[in-house]
Amino acid sequence: MKKIELGMTRIFDDKKAKMFVVHDSPYFKIINFNFRAGQTLPVHSHNIEGQLSILVLEGEGEFLAADNKSIPAKTGDVLFSDIATPHGVKANTDMRVLVTIAPPI
Amino acid sequence: MKKIELGMTRIFDDKKAKMFVVHDSPYFKIINFNFRAGQTLPVHSHNIEGQLSILVLEGEGEFLAADNKSIPAKTGDVLFSDIATPHGVKANTDMRVLVTIAPPI
Repeated sequence: MKKIELGMTRIFDDKKAKMFVVHDSPYFKIINFNFRAGQTLPVHSHNIEGQLSILVLEGEGEFLAADNKSIPAKTGDVLFSDIATPHGVKANTDMRVLVTIAPPI
Repeated sequence: MKKIELGMTRIFDDKKAKMFVVHDSPYFKIINFNFRAGQTLPVHSHNIEGQLSILVLEGEGEFLAADNKSIPAKTGDVLFSDIATPHGVKANTDMRVLVTIAPPI
């Protein structure tokens, strides 16, 4: 058992999105991204089996998808996506998300 | 891609912990538990491979472990545990958690 306090990784970088790998095991990988307003996790995908979740811990923005599509994202929203499906995040306010990838990549 | 708004499952039950399965796939299962102060997810385990995370969405309580041990749990804390390791939750205030189980059980 291991406890992580996400309050400890509430760190932003004005130059680029800040990323903390908070857990990595054979079963899943968990990453905290902190975005200043306007920062993004650009749309990307990996050609492997598996799924990911993106939980908005705080702030507002958009879940990004292929073809410049997007879905509004606010605190408490969770996106589920295949790892092979293009996905990303854009912050409209300062924004924190928690990404869970299973199996890990 | 699918978006779930956890604000929609912010429902409590005075009689017992409320549970919502928000996602279930071959890769992971994601469950939202809402506890009134004093309610618990009793310590339990399953004798299978895999890990789980328990993220506190709001409120305060304890992560429960074997031998009556516990770890303080507050908003933004995440517990990582093997599925086979005894684990549980106790709410000291109204409390919401998001549990991710990989692979799903």
